[in-house]
Amino acid sequence: MKPVIVVHGGAGRIFKDREDGCRSGVTRAALKGYGILKHGGSALDAVEEAVVVMEEDPHFNAGCGSVLNEKGEVEMDAIIMDGKNLASGAVSAVKCIANPIKLARLVMEKTDHMLLTDQGASAFARGMGVPEVPGEKLITGRSLERWKKNLEADSNPQQFQKDLGTVGAVAIDSAGNVACATSTGGLTNKRVGRVGDTACIGSGGYADNNVGATSTTGHGESIMKVVLARLILYHMEQGKSPGDAADSALDCMKTRVGGLGGVIVISNSGDWAARCSTQEMSWATVKDDQLHYGIHAGEWHTQPAEEAISSLGC
Amino acid sequence: MKPVIVVHGGAGRIFKDREDGCRSGVTRAALKGYGILKHGGSALDAVEEAVVVMEEDPHFNAGCGSVLNEKGEVEMDAIIMDGKNLASGAVSAVKCIANPIKLARLVMEKTDHMLLTDQGASAFARGMGVPEVPGEKLITGRSLERWKKNLEADSNPQQFQKDLGTVGAVAIDSAGNVACATSTGGLTNKRVGRVGDTACIGSGGYADNNVGATSTTGHGESIMKVVLARLILYHMEQGKSPGDAADSALDCMKTRVGGLGGVIVISNSGDWAARCSTQEMSWATVKDDQLHYGIHAGEWHTQPAEEAISSLGC
Repeated sequence: MKPVIVVHGGAGRIFKDREDGCRSGVTRAALKGYGILKHGGSALDAVEEAVVVMEEDPHFNAGCGSVLNEKGEVEMDAIIMDGKNLASGAVSAVKCIANPIKLARLVMEKTDHMLLTDQGASAFARGMGVPEVPGEKLITGRSLERWKKNLEADSNPQQFQKDLGTVGAVAIDSAGNVACATSTGGLTNKRVGRVGDTACIGSGGYADNNVGATSTTGHGESIMKVVLARLILYHMEQGKSPGDAADSALDCMKTRVGGLGGVIVISNSGDWAARCSTQEMSWATVKDDQLHYGIHAGEWHTQPAEEAISSLGC
Repeated sequence: MKPVIVVHGGAGRIFKDREDGCRSGVTRAALKGYGILKHGGSALDAVEEAVVVMEEDPHFNAGCGSVLNEKGEVEMDAIIMDGKNLASGAVSAVKCIANPIKLARLVMEKTDHMLLTDQGASAFARGMGVPEVPGEKLITGRSLERWKKNLEADSNPQQFQKDLGTVGAVAIDSAGNVACATSTGGLTNKRVGRVGDTACIGSGGYADNNVGATSTTGHGESIMKVVLARLILYHMEQGKSPGDAADSALDCMKTRVGGLGGVIVISNSGDWAARCSTQEMSWATVKDDQLHYGIHAGEWHTQPAEEAISSLGC
């Protein structure tokens, strides 16, 4: 099987000043994951490392750069899933760690559980020797400014909640295994303890070697209502292509619950799609050593992966 | 539409000394919910109140009677869902409240979110005026004894984890709306912060007026891997009856991930099923003013609802 990776940097309204950073961020992430796959690495390693790249990039709403909750804190959710055995690990409402996706993988591999939350997730992180980072280290000037604006009497938090920026990746490795990973800071000015779709298996992501893998982004509560990730794979089980399955599921979410979002999908034969019902979604993929990426509807850049690696210096 | 309610008191190994209490508990819960439906109440009210009856009954692993985590505390998860608009509310890892299902409903109706966890859920409960109960009030002698036994060097926690006892209800009201509710104390001696299937939409329950509603019980991590509740409704969308859909989904969970459990299902035409792949599951239903209930495979008691209400004094 030829390895393929697809990543997204979130669906919603991507403001002009953030576009270049998002393009660069998703291409770096996709190239990083593809490098792992090309060297015989697993889909699981590829999606984890691709997400780590975006968690560490302040352009995205995950890890450093996460939006702030009502108290001005970063509280994050993440999930990872292995299509081989349906194993999965997730964390919800975690604070003060740089890479929630790594903690999610530890939950999958070092516990009998699949989801650890809040204080229990923090205790587990400490037990695993995951370094605690001061909460402020994850807060960017942009996040802080937005949070403060939302506290003003005449604010419009909905406006900023459209700029969502959850990150995710799906991949297939040379052994034919698929995997997905998703990580997010959630909704701007959310209540303390709000958990969105990302930490919920079947909503924020799903991976099954019998079908494929998907990672979702968009309005979390709408994604949960239709269990979006699992819905996409059901459509593929019924014979739909990744693109048609994604379109059908996003359409269902829009018509049934009025929610918008975006998804990346890969099939177990290596076909892929990146679709959104929002205005924009940053995405990138590498297949057959060719990098493809875009943000706006119809935007599609192609470049040899080697050339992109040289020009990005990654 | 004729109203119908189905409840379960958990799938697993039900020990002899607990059988009578479980039979009585599920029948009381089903009769309570049915009374609401017969007086024109909503499916949502019926499933909530049926689950409250079982949360307050120490025979079940939900509310008072919940199993204890590794620290000897009660930490609970609950979810409720409205099939009319796919609205849902859930809480995870909540402590010191008597009825997590009521808090889940408040999340659904009083916030823009769908899942609140741990400290944030507690803060929300306080804000809503939900009374805090001392943690000890939820701990039964049986839970404490079991927890202590599991801490002994030669203990076999797996043995007790088979006695699961999550509770749940599904219903259809006279307007044709379906709803589901599920509540649990989770796994015996679980890690602090472990969240299981119950709080995850599509795993612990799902309700959609276009198809029906279901509530699940059993090994939480296995249920999550196959997103069991949503899987059952997919089978029904493909034309399967509630019973066949339940059997197919439980069979998939057993063969694919080696997990056992039980489910209750109702279709949007009022057909219902209660199935399990475990040794036992306590269940009860009321339809056409007739109460049906059982625990063991093949056990099926029938009694006029009025007569059962008189004899139980409820």
